[in-house]
Amino acid sequence: MTQTRPVFDSDPFVPLCIAVDWGTTNLRAFLMGQTGHIRAKRSSDRGMLTLNSDEFESVLQDFLGDWLHPDVPIYMAGMVGSRGGWQEVPYQVCPMQLDTLAEHLCWLDSHLPCEVAIVPGLQGIGISGHFDVMRGEETQLLGAMDWLYEQGQADQAVLCCLPGTHSKWVPLLKGEVTQFSTSFSGEMFARLSNESSLVKGLPKQDSLNKEGFQQGLLASQQAGGLLHHLFSVRSDSVCGRLPEEQVRDYLSGIVIGHDVNDMLAAQPQPISSVLIVGSEHLCERYQVALSFHQVASQCLDASEASIRGLTRLARQQVRQEQQIGEKK
Amino acid sequence: MTQTRPVFDSDPFVPLCIAVDWGTTNLRAFLMGQTGHIRAKRSSDRGMLTLNSDEFESVLQDFLGDWLHPDVPIYMAGMVGSRGGWQEVPYQVCPMQLDTLAEHLCWLDSHLPCEVAIVPGLQGIGISGHFDVMRGEETQLLGAMDWLYEQGQADQAVLCCLPGTHSKWVPLLKGEVTQFSTSFSGEMFARLSNESSLVKGLPKQDSLNKEGFQQGLLASQQAGGLLHHLFSVRSDSVCGRLPEEQVRDYLSGIVIGHDVNDMLAAQPQPISSVLIVGSEHLCERYQVALSFHQVASQCLDASEASIRGLTRLARQQVRQEQQIGEKK
Repeated sequence: MTQTRPVFDSDPFVPLCIAVDWGTTNLRAFLMGQTGHIRAKRSSDRGMLTLNSDEFESVLQDFLGDWLHPDVPIYMAGMVGSRGGWQEVPYQVCPMQLDTLAEHLCWLDSHLPCEVAIVPGLQGIGISGHFDVMRGEETQLLGAMDWLYEQGQADQAVLCCLPGTHSKWVPLLKGEVTQFSTSFSGEMFARLSNESSLVKGLPKQDSLNKEGFQQGLLASQQAGGLLHHLFSVRSDSVCGRLPEEQVRDYLSGIVIGHDVNDMLAAQPQPISSVLIVGSEHLCERYQVALSFHQVASQCLDASEASIRGLTRLARQQVRQEQQIGEKK
Repeated sequence: MTQTRPVFDSDPFVPLCIAVDWGTTNLRAFLMGQTGHIRAKRSSDRGMLTLNSDEFESVLQDFLGDWLHPDVPIYMAGMVGSRGGWQEVPYQVCPMQLDTLAEHLCWLDSHLPCEVAIVPGLQGIGISGHFDVMRGEETQLLGAMDWLYEQGQADQAVLCCLPGTHSKWVPLLKGEVTQFSTSFSGEMFARLSNESSLVKGLPKQDSLNKEGFQQGLLASQQAGGLLHHLFSVRSDSVCGRLPEEQVRDYLSGIVIGHDVNDMLAAQPQPISSVLIVGSEHLCERYQVALSFHQVASQCLDASEASIRGLTRLARQQVRQEQQIGEKK
């Protein structure tokens, strides 16, 4: 667990809330000030996959420790609300206005000294006509909407891309989500890069090999489809066309290239600009892939989007309580 | 090891050859009579992955045992000729006439009492313009050519599909291979079915669930691409649209559906008929997938094709020796 001590003493105000992003592999918390700045943050590897349902409360209590305060509510997003999480929270069904998420928070019965809520995930129809689901990204989308308002882009229709294990492609118009589509791109790359015959015995590297990645993007635009292009990782390597240090990013380029090709092709209107909400590492790759289609993009850090989303929810709650107070 | 005793005594002729199919996971041998019938067969799980390079000779000697005879040559196809196999045999480069494989056999230096040859694999260019390679399938193709001659279809252009771990799509005209394309379909399905979040916790079953498979084929024809369709395995299941017993074959239908869609779409001319060379299990699935495109198909058992190919090579060798004998 890494942590920064909160600075209660130097801030005369009680914090606004504790924003918690609790996913499958990580647990992160942010102590948010009244003006939306981060007063302190903590993270640990106690993700959902490491926990039984009855352990969540005590893990959170230990984790937040001296941050806990009766006047500081906790807002949580992510897989914490899925089956096998703290409590399964039903999906909200699209079409939906992201700002109505605040009305559908799931308030938990707990022994913690403050109120604790989980944000519900979304269920909708994907571009193929099949069901689609998300948990955690809805909060990032709310944060992205908040950010778009701040940038003066509130009224524009925008296609959001949230790359990750299960990447999401979400058309957003004035804060409304009508449909969204998930791509298996992140898990696909991870499985092929860790286990498959395509890269067997080849070294791993951390930095992006641009040449390899671009060759992969080019390959994704050839005839034959993804399943065929994937085999070229091995055959081009065996036949000496693909240098060893390029192989993994060539594979990454093929997978991300197909993700972008297919999603752009499936949109009902041509897309000229995309808002990418992700880690720096993935934003960079998707930007390059989108630029291959002459599609411009803006980037928003996924973690910042989550915090913005949770903070917006907390503020809506405060306003609601103030209105109730004024009426009394 | 399973085996059937040879019946040397009841056959007045010395066998034609021993045909060996030595792949990554299995070792199979067939004692072939002069007229091309199988006198006896053996199989074991001593595939290439279980062996070091210096073990192949002694494993084969023990395995063949009483079949070994100075006048009965051994012909081997498959990964036995790859790096990490008995001996790495260079690929033959396309375009090539399959009947010229006989001129490029790799005769091994061994302590066995008979001649031992490995059939070289092929290297060519795939439909995407990238390199492509095969080992073992070239022998099945030679067998398929032999079978086509027997069926009176020798002069027709035919698209061969050899489904497997790394499926091959090979246009064949009068025994010539100019290019071929590999699809990662089999390994893709195996990895996703064994390890991924798509089917986590769901039971495995042996028989084909036709309803699930056909739903997967239908999904593969929707908008959004393979990476998106794969996620519908999970989302349709979570949302209650996809019954548990259909999930794995739905996944199989998506993968095979994309393999077939992409390869048919990439051919320079429309395809009306395909020759599938594979196991019964895979032939059935590819036939259904092809019928979705109104493409007719014939099936040839992959093992029969291998034996036919190796037997044809042995006969060519005998004829060559006879011609040399006649000239002397």
